[in-house]
Amino acid sequence: MISRGDVEAARTRIDSRVLRTPVLRLDRLWLKLEQLQHTGSFKARGAFNRVLAAAETDGLPEAGVIAASGGNAGLAFAYAARELGARAEVFVPETAPPVKVARLRALGAAVRQVGREYAEAYEAATKRAADTGALFGHPYDQPEVCAGQGTLALELEEQTGGVETVLVSVGGGGLMAGIAAALEGRSRVVAVEPEACPSFHAALEAGRPVDAPVSGVAADSLGARRVGDIPYAVARRTAVESILVSDADVIAARRALWQDHHIVVEHGTAAAYAALLTGAYTPSTDETVAVICCGANTDPADLA
Amino acid sequence: MISRGDVEAARTRIDSRVLRTPVLRLDRLWLKLEQLQHTGSFKARGAFNRVLAAAETDGLPEAGVIAASGGNAGLAFAYAARELGARAEVFVPETAPPVKVARLRALGAAVRQVGREYAEAYEAATKRAADTGALFGHPYDQPEVCAGQGTLALELEEQTGGVETVLVSVGGGGLMAGIAAALEGRSRVVAVEPEACPSFHAALEAGRPVDAPVSGVAADSLGARRVGDIPYAVARRTAVESILVSDADVIAARRALWQDHHIVVEHGTAAAYAALLTGAYTPSTDETVAVICCGANTDPADLA
Repeated sequence: MISRGDVEAARTRIDSRVLRTPVLRLDRLWLKLEQLQHTGSFKARGAFNRVLAAAETDGLPEAGVIAASGGNAGLAFAYAARELGARAEVFVPETAPPVKVARLRALGAAVRQVGREYAEAYEAATKRAADTGALFGHPYDQPEVCAGQGTLALELEEQTGGVETVLVSVGGGGLMAGIAAALEGRSRVVAVEPEACPSFHAALEAGRPVDAPVSGVAADSLGARRVGDIPYAVARRTAVESILVSDADVIAARRALWQDHHIVVEHGTAAAYAALLTGAYTPSTDETVAVICCGANTDPADLA
Repeated sequence: MISRGDVEAARTRIDSRVLRTPVLRLDRLWLKLEQLQHTGSFKARGAFNRVLAAAETDGLPEAGVIAASGGNAGLAFAYAARELGARAEVFVPETAPPVKVARLRALGAAVRQVGREYAEAYEAATKRAADTGALFGHPYDQPEVCAGQGTLALELEEQTGGVETVLVSVGGGGLMAGIAAALEGRSRVVAVEPEACPSFHAALEAGRPVDAPVSGVAADSLGARRVGDIPYAVARRTAVESILVSDADVIAARRALWQDHHIVVEHGTAAAYAALLTGAYTPSTDETVAVICCGANTDPADLA
């Protein structure tokens, strides 16, 4: 479990390593432009906090950092490792698109392609970390990772003077947990997921993290099979609300962010904005709302 | 001629109508994200100032607002007119791309397609304004337009605490003039143009505004045949410097803004960034620099 104090400690740790991403104010709506973060997503925050926290206590292991992710988390750990002078090894399935593998390699990571599904790559990564003594960086279910992601909420609070409600897209739940911990007792946090990958919604219904279906346009960034234990616990403690949106709504919201505001985000990010556009979340008249634009690792060709 | 006082007056006039666009800090470099402004460019500032200043003195004419532009200026005047409850008539050449005509119509403007070249559309627009009593909004060569554009420099100063140097792309020169007037005696202003449309550079060489070639990738936003008289006078008074970059450098800079920073801009904007990337402008070790990202009316398909 993490609290605001953990997020504040994370901020001290990573402050010189990450960008203070700007906000765009549209009347009572604030967009936090975290897609402009290093490596194109909020994941850089958690990765730096995980690696720097480990370095503080035990020093960085000779074997470096290991992650299992062909997506934003992999990029973030590869980037953080490079910036901190550590080796990075990133495990992805054999089916990972060549463009993602190339991006990881461009950041200096050794890429290991193992198995046909993410679960196999994940298992190989944890085994390798145990064998070599490397630091394993989880995409969402580690306290340092969640606390690191939450640092964007501290910035948001300073930049806006505080908002009543934060809408955030949820996959594994690390960002949701970090924000909810940082803003506990201060802001309502609403988790938005596509119906096609509803890991947090399914957990709330079951009363515990359970496997959920993974498909649809946002699966590449929000497609965690199961919400993390830490995120789930933090979300329950802080009463995070849950909303689902359709894939069609996600696609329309991503397009609207470009056409109306000239902001390019990935489909995962657009889920949070879709909740507003569709009225799935309807703020009261004077309510101040922030939407977290959390990632832009996307191909903008279809926005033409 | 305009001064900082004109820009401050413009700000009071338009403050509730335009967005305070955010900045992204990258060490000693600041990016002013003005491409997130209403209608996707800084032109909204000048358009509102032109229309509101006229409304203050004479009231808005029954015949509304007339502009000649198939690009950012046309969009901005159409938007400002709609927001202020005025009619808008926008003149474009018969050759204007259907997508631009459609965008103007979507903002409620009456679109008049006249002549094969911009000069013919421009002439028809000024004649029509004279005949009907409508307010003519020039894309750059009016004091209220230049002063309005300059309001972004006042924001920039507040957001950064002041920078030593501002790099700005130049077409007709309205934005350059507004910034130079706002920051006179405070910041160095460097005008960046593609070699293929060097209106300001040509004017400096000739000692007065002269016709210059117009071609290349940024012609749609920077392709003014001749820099404005007001912009030229302000630039001379304030000693604006001039730099040229190649089209290849512009294309590479636009791509780098997307790949490295997840920011999508039009080619015109990328000229200013290209001056830094290529070393055409090399800041000293501790120099603080701002690059104005001034427009995003672009097709992102080629960034894939």
